[in-house]
Amino acid sequence: MAAACPLCAADGGRLVLRTPRWRLIHAEGAGFPAFYRLVWNAHVAEFSDLDRGERAELTEALALAEQLIREHLAPTKMNVASLGNMVPHLHWHLIARFEGDSHFPAPVWATAVREPDAAQLEGVRARLPALESAMRERMASAR
Amino acid sequence: MAAACPLCAADGGRLVLRTPRWRLIHAEGAGFPAFYRLVWNAHVAEFSDLDRGERAELTEALALAEQLIREHLAPTKMNVASLGNMVPHLHWHLIARFEGDSHFPAPVWATAVREPDAAQLEGVRARLPALESAMRERMASAR
Repeated sequence: MAAACPLCAADGGRLVLRTPRWRLIHAEGAGFPAFYRLVWNAHVAEFSDLDRGERAELTEALALAEQLIREHLAPTKMNVASLGNMVPHLHWHLIARFEGDSHFPAPVWATAVREPDAAQLEGVRARLPALESAMRERMASAR
Repeated sequence: MAAACPLCAADGGRLVLRTPRWRLIHAEGAGFPAFYRLVWNAHVAEFSDLDRGERAELTEALALAEQLIREHLAPTKMNVASLGNMVPHLHWHLIARFEGDSHFPAPVWATAVREPDAAQLEGVRARLPALESAMRERMASAR
């Protein structure tokens, strides 16, 4: 627990699933409807601060979340990233990207290349409840 | 091997180390001197296309590369990402970030926030040969 760390003080988004070592949150208002974050509960800064067993647990959770997102949303591409320059508490961004989304094929952190497509956004949003049910069912026991 | 895939046709940058399943390259001209990419040799698009053993091998290589970069360069933060919207052949960006670099604390894909600091860039570049020697020694046998 680190003083003034926002990911120690709060979940960091809408909680989908919490396990003893990590939690999965939905990042609201990011402009990408299928934007999730896998947050390591303990305050560590870097992936290489984890031991091998912890890394394996986090990696398998990331891969299973990615697989479920692919099954439910069929994105053009998955984007996965651990940056943390502003909040150096280990968290992985998991973002489903679609041809025609506001930034595609640029990274979500680059300048937008087109206006968002409201129908596409709504189509993705409509499938999130089923996706998140599957995440809760399949990921809680995954190790 | 996929037709017209640049990461099937070539290494994709200056080769640091090649193993049977992955290679580590230095990304030239990215504006960030310590910008490496861990490229899976076979043509797969997503991390979740690998099996568990392959993911573990890739994860441990990523973590060891990150640890060596931290030991040699002492960056402010490591940035790790698998995007691949333009080249959907699995590769992980590994970027050492420094307070005061051209984009910090923004992601490298965002708009620059300041001019690059030539002395800082040169200081990092000067330490790359020793880093890459350590990568070749330590990572070739790591599994």
